[in-house]
Amino acid sequence: MKIRVFTILILMIVSGLAEDKLRYTNATELRIQGTAFSVAEKENPFHRLPRYAQELVRREVWDLSTNSAGIFIDFYTNSSFLKLKWEVTKNFTMEHMAGTGIRGLDLYCKNKGKWQYVATAKSAGKVSEKVIIENMSGTMKEFRLYLPLYDGIESLEIGIHADAQIEKGQAYSEKPLVFYGTSITQGGCASRPGMAYPNIISRKLDKNCINLGFSGNGWLQEPMARILAGIEADMIVLDCLPNMTIKMVHENIPKAIDIIRQKQPQVPIVLVENINYETNYFNFLQYQDIYDKNGALRYEFNQLMENNYRNIYLLSAKGLIGLDHEGTVDGVHLTDLGFLRFAENFIARLKKQGLIK
Amino acid sequence: MKIRVFTILILMIVSGLAEDKLRYTNATELRIQGTAFSVAEKENPFHRLPRYAQELVRREVWDLSTNSAGIFIDFYTNSSFLKLKWEVTKNFTMEHMAGTGIRGLDLYCKNKGKWQYVATAKSAGKVSEKVIIENMSGTMKEFRLYLPLYDGIESLEIGIHADAQIEKGQAYSEKPLVFYGTSITQGGCASRPGMAYPNIISRKLDKNCINLGFSGNGWLQEPMARILAGIEADMIVLDCLPNMTIKMVHENIPKAIDIIRQKQPQVPIVLVENINYETNYFNFLQYQDIYDKNGALRYEFNQLMENNYRNIYLLSAKGLIGLDHEGTVDGVHLTDLGFLRFAENFIARLKKQGLIK
Repeated sequence: MKIRVFTILILMIVSGLAEDKLRYTNATELRIQGTAFSVAEKENPFHRLPRYAQELVRREVWDLSTNSAGIFIDFYTNSSFLKLKWEVTKNFTMEHMAGTGIRGLDLYCKNKGKWQYVATAKSAGKVSEKVIIENMSGTMKEFRLYLPLYDGIESLEIGIHADAQIEKGQAYSEKPLVFYGTSITQGGCASRPGMAYPNIISRKLDKNCINLGFSGNGWLQEPMARILAGIEADMIVLDCLPNMTIKMVHENIPKAIDIIRQKQPQVPIVLVENINYETNYFNFLQYQDIYDKNGALRYEFNQLMENNYRNIYLLSAKGLIGLDHEGTVDGVHLTDLGFLRFAENFIARLKKQGLIK
Repeated sequence: MKIRVFTILILMIVSGLAEDKLRYTNATELRIQGTAFSVAEKENPFHRLPRYAQELVRREVWDLSTNSAGIFIDFYTNSSFLKLKWEVTKNFTMEHMAGTGIRGLDLYCKNKGKWQYVATAKSAGKVSEKVIIENMSGTMKEFRLYLPLYDGIESLEIGIHADAQIEKGQAYSEKPLVFYGTSITQGGCASRPGMAYPNIISRKLDKNCINLGFSGNGWLQEPMARILAGIEADMIVLDCLPNMTIKMVHENIPKAIDIIRQKQPQVPIVLVENINYETNYFNFLQYQDIYDKNGALRYEFNQLMENNYRNIYLLSAKGLIGLDHEGTVDGVHLTDLGFLRFAENFIARLKKQGLIK
């Protein structure tokens, strides 16, 4: 008992949160990952597309690209606490997604070689200041902080004990995996940023994954295909079917693949089928719609195979989010449950194809 | 192609949503389940405690008992669509829980003997009117509609096609399983009502489960113990540790068990350990707190065993929400992922003990 009280007292002293013992570091001084473009190329360090893209893509796509989905900050620190100060761009709500997923931040720490969840910072409005974790041991640790999925970040500072050190995390030496798609790709409706499937895949494979999901706007038009082609990648995943019409599938997919192939002749390209929305087991009109769209995708995939395109893969959506119909909030958008299953099945299926080691 | 267009046309005619083809039924005319008390005993049919309890429990507990957590409406209908009209009591928001979980409704349908998710109705404010599903086949089906987890229901009507039938669902012949506890028990932070763990357990076992989770107020005081004792049950689960101090564990748990035993000498009582919050793997002060509280619970359990109490079980929280640290939104409150794991592990462990067939 005496030892316990002593330990607590020591921890309380070490972790003392007195403002005069707090020192903020701008997140831009740390390692910004999960983005294909440098701070210099962008209007805001936490945007997902470079400045020049604003002239090329539709206004809706540009607006969504200012959401920080998939961007994360890697750093080392030995501070016994972490305090965050951040300002979001919009501060809006969605009925079927928690604020923590829309505009919160969540923290992971590398533990025995694996990224482990630490804590979540809930937004308090446009500007927030929150202690995300305290009473930690004072050893040097590797942290990862995920940024909001459906809002933008105007500024972000990470507060540590004034006597502690903070350093940039390591850059990935390998090329990233790029995920292009829809609201589901962007992370709707994860409970917190780290649970969007590109972020889960990134942790599980310890690879830099880039989230180019654009809610409702994953149409794969030519300007976006050119942007994708310009991102040197280890894999490009096209998970945009839910936002496409059958006409778009036939017109935009082969064109986009040609554009990517001109720049990256060998990069593996994964075409993901449309998951069958849970509601469709009862709503027969919607069922037919998805069935036809997946048929169109399979047709285009077969055409590509016949025309000797290589390193193109078709990922079946069957069972991708499980078979118990429980992985969504509204029949369409995945919860953390659906996202974890998506990530696990995605990895298992691509491993089977030899695409992932 | 011709056949498909024809099918679609037929479905559109059958499912026609013209207001003159709509007929509303008050939910109180259908089967209200997941509650231990009759409509006659309650101030509002969707409250969780009877009128008389208002004089006995603390004001906070009473207020929370007006949340409709765990209450569901069972009915049969052959309508090709379902429209809901409902009014919630408070219409408030929480940063770490989606509106669909707080004040939405979700629908299940029995398919080959299993409850299968159909769709979710998102609230539009205090009063909402929404088509939850359409374009269904016109066969008679068994539906279950879950009510909001963190808000109350002032009124609820279920709209069907005027020419369709609607009937009360079946009552359960067996006694219910009763879950008493905290915000986690109440369903914080499920994405939609059906994903609170008592609701998942209810579907998986096809048993009537009663949710008596009172966010932040699961103190197990004497008046609540008397209410629990009065509910004739097949099992009483006490999952209230997260809201208790060590003092409460020592004082309230043995007293509550005595009160229950006086009324129900044989009913199995399950004491659930406090899950180790994910944040605690880093925040050492909190870790110690949970460790000590679980120690206190184990002490009381051992005392009961020594004193020849029978049919009392201690459920370890180890691995209850998985081992990957991904099952919560904030380190404490479960997401659908954590809830599904809780339900699956709960059932597996109690089956092993012979408590569930």
